[in-house]
Amino acid sequence: MRFSARSHSLPASPIRRLEPFAEEARARGIRIYPLHIGQPDIETPGQFSEAVKKFSHKTLAYGTSQGDFGLIDKIVEYYGNYGIPLERKDILVTNGGSEALNFAVQIVCDPGDEMLVPEPFFPAYAAFAASASARIIPVTTRAEDGFHLPSRSGIEKLISPATRAILLSHPGNPTGVVYSREEIETLADLTVKHDLLLIADEVYREFVYMDELYCSFGNIERIRDRLVIIDSVSKRYSACGARIGCLISRNPEFISLGLKYCQARGCPPTLEQLGAAALYETPDPYLKEVNREYRKRRDILFDGLSGIPGVVCKKPEGAFYIMAKLPVDDAEKFIIWMLQEFSVNGETVMTSPAEGFYATPGLGKTEIRMAYVLNEGDLKNAVKILAKGISAYPGKTLWPE
Amino acid sequence: MRFSARSHSLPASPIRRLEPFAEEARARGIRIYPLHIGQPDIETPGQFSEAVKKFSHKTLAYGTSQGDFGLIDKIVEYYGNYGIPLERKDILVTNGGSEALNFAVQIVCDPGDEMLVPEPFFPAYAAFAASASARIIPVTTRAEDGFHLPSRSGIEKLISPATRAILLSHPGNPTGVVYSREEIETLADLTVKHDLLLIADEVYREFVYMDELYCSFGNIERIRDRLVIIDSVSKRYSACGARIGCLISRNPEFISLGLKYCQARGCPPTLEQLGAAALYETPDPYLKEVNREYRKRRDILFDGLSGIPGVVCKKPEGAFYIMAKLPVDDAEKFIIWMLQEFSVNGETVMTSPAEGFYATPGLGKTEIRMAYVLNEGDLKNAVKILAKGISAYPGKTLWPE
Repeated sequence: MRFSARSHSLPASPIRRLEPFAEEARARGIRIYPLHIGQPDIETPGQFSEAVKKFSHKTLAYGTSQGDFGLIDKIVEYYGNYGIPLERKDILVTNGGSEALNFAVQIVCDPGDEMLVPEPFFPAYAAFAASASARIIPVTTRAEDGFHLPSRSGIEKLISPATRAILLSHPGNPTGVVYSREEIETLADLTVKHDLLLIADEVYREFVYMDELYCSFGNIERIRDRLVIIDSVSKRYSACGARIGCLISRNPEFISLGLKYCQARGCPPTLEQLGAAALYETPDPYLKEVNREYRKRRDILFDGLSGIPGVVCKKPEGAFYIMAKLPVDDAEKFIIWMLQEFSVNGETVMTSPAEGFYATPGLGKTEIRMAYVLNEGDLKNAVKILAKGISAYPGKTLWPE
Repeated sequence: MRFSARSHSLPASPIRRLEPFAEEARARGIRIYPLHIGQPDIETPGQFSEAVKKFSHKTLAYGTSQGDFGLIDKIVEYYGNYGIPLERKDILVTNGGSEALNFAVQIVCDPGDEMLVPEPFFPAYAAFAASASARIIPVTTRAEDGFHLPSRSGIEKLISPATRAILLSHPGNPTGVVYSREEIETLADLTVKHDLLLIADEVYREFVYMDELYCSFGNIERIRDRLVIIDSVSKRYSACGARIGCLISRNPEFISLGLKYCQARGCPPTLEQLGAAALYETPDPYLKEVNREYRKRRDILFDGLSGIPGVVCKKPEGAFYIMAKLPVDDAEKFIIWMLQEFSVNGETVMTSPAEGFYATPGLGKTEIRMAYVLNEGDLKNAVKILAKGISAYPGKTLWPE
């Protein structure tokens, strides 16, 4: 008996697979600052649980496959406020942004088809591509450039007859990049010119720390019927455990294909949809306040990292991650060493090895991703411990070589 | 721009795709008896919402990818009572049984690989196979035989070098078949002899109406490491909207591959897992009482159908569905006609066309699936209306020809 090559090729999550080392450390009484996963410590707005508690049907029945209209109408309204006019029929509610991504890849790729993806990228993209027997063609970006895109010709030369889509997160996970209007227009041009679909994962839309206005791909009219937006309440409302996202497209063929996937899996969870709909009623200052808080955290983490000799990173413009090159032989070894062998007053730091965020072999080997999802005090402690760890690490290297 | 052949080949749900006709009928004030979908009217045990309401964490955070141990421990205990010893590591919690099915197909099939599936089968099987670019090889069974399996040689001749698994539901959806010990042993033999995986969807395990003891594939020791069980709280505890199921295997390689799929999608929904764990604490008489209720309903529906001239069906032994051949030209036309043109005192009946439950072209064209998920009075009315509908239907045929 053998299992599929596809499932063997599926990458284990670089964010979650080192968890056993963390558990061992905790068992030894070590406190760990969790910078490895984008799990905000921000409170979920109370509307969520209030709405859930009001559920009074005696039978917890199937909902519709598309999702509850109560929630869908809130999403329509939210996008309307962004200048992106949607109708109910443009939205499929999904089990988190991840199911939306999975469906999008399935709908656009047959086995062997290709998607251009700026790297480093969110590792689940590689998993969903593998699951569809599709290939990711990386558009390599670098820490030194703040992870902004290469030139138009640099991107265009990667497009082949097998290319079906451009897939990206914006603002970027793990890079924190927010694309300039020019970069967005270039991607839109290439999408139209090469007859592609553009899949924009915009779950971090509210987390932009620049003064310029953020531009959603949904605001670019000429890719209106070539655009798929992935969205979620997980980060926006600090409700990762709700697993409520959505797949948005104004291309009716795409939606009708997506609906078949929705039907195959029944429906999204009922209670969590009720809660998610209520989240969209959170008063306006909430998102502004959360943005301010993350902006402060970004500055703390970035300033702290900038003070560590040999660490290379640029100040991210959005999301809540920083990618940094460390002066170490191997980032994964370093992370495990931090969990197994290092602590300061019984405390240590966990980060994610960046190699799994790249498709190009060898890239990211000395990089880590950090999520600035802890409060100010914890974040400051975490950076101090990280600095001491790098200094004490036996595999420390000179940087740059 | 073109979308994937795979997504075009994905079947629309025969259970859900006629919903627009039902909506139109409802808009005209018609009351519809919904026999088309396995949505029980039984109340969800109150433990579910009590447990959900106790959730008091301020942040609705990600859970672990494998699922909450609180729920997993309940599943271990439940299986222990069935004589199927499991450990925590054998269980992955999923978004309903459907996600478990999807993962199982992904793990065992590469593009072009084949799975033997007794037909008629639950249509989502075809969707998950299409999604994995895999092929379903139908093992045809017939209403006249109560949908029991063909002979060992009849099954074995369908196995090819591309066969990776046998996939079936037991008790059967849509057939209600419960396999004899001999059929189960035959399938186990073929699984071992041809080095296959056996994927047993046992979500209707508690709905068996025979006097003999139900045998789970989990009780067959020699396929211990070749068996995957799909399970769910949806039907067992009338909690379809919770979307909590699980994928069970005592093959560590299968589980480690499955865990990567779990990681890619994050985690199952938090609140619904809390509720599901509490469901497993429902006092024992609940399942017995529910079983008695469905047994009564089966008898009512079966007796009613048996009295309609030209209708062919056998008394199902389990689950809560009946497949019946009708004396009509085309079952789907008939169902739509019932919704659009027929009613008795402002009431009509909705059923599912069976063609989508078959992989063999042409089969099931005059068959329907009915779910006996309504109370006694409603079910009796529904059968009466169905009988009158068949009698009045312009496309009525003689039967058998």
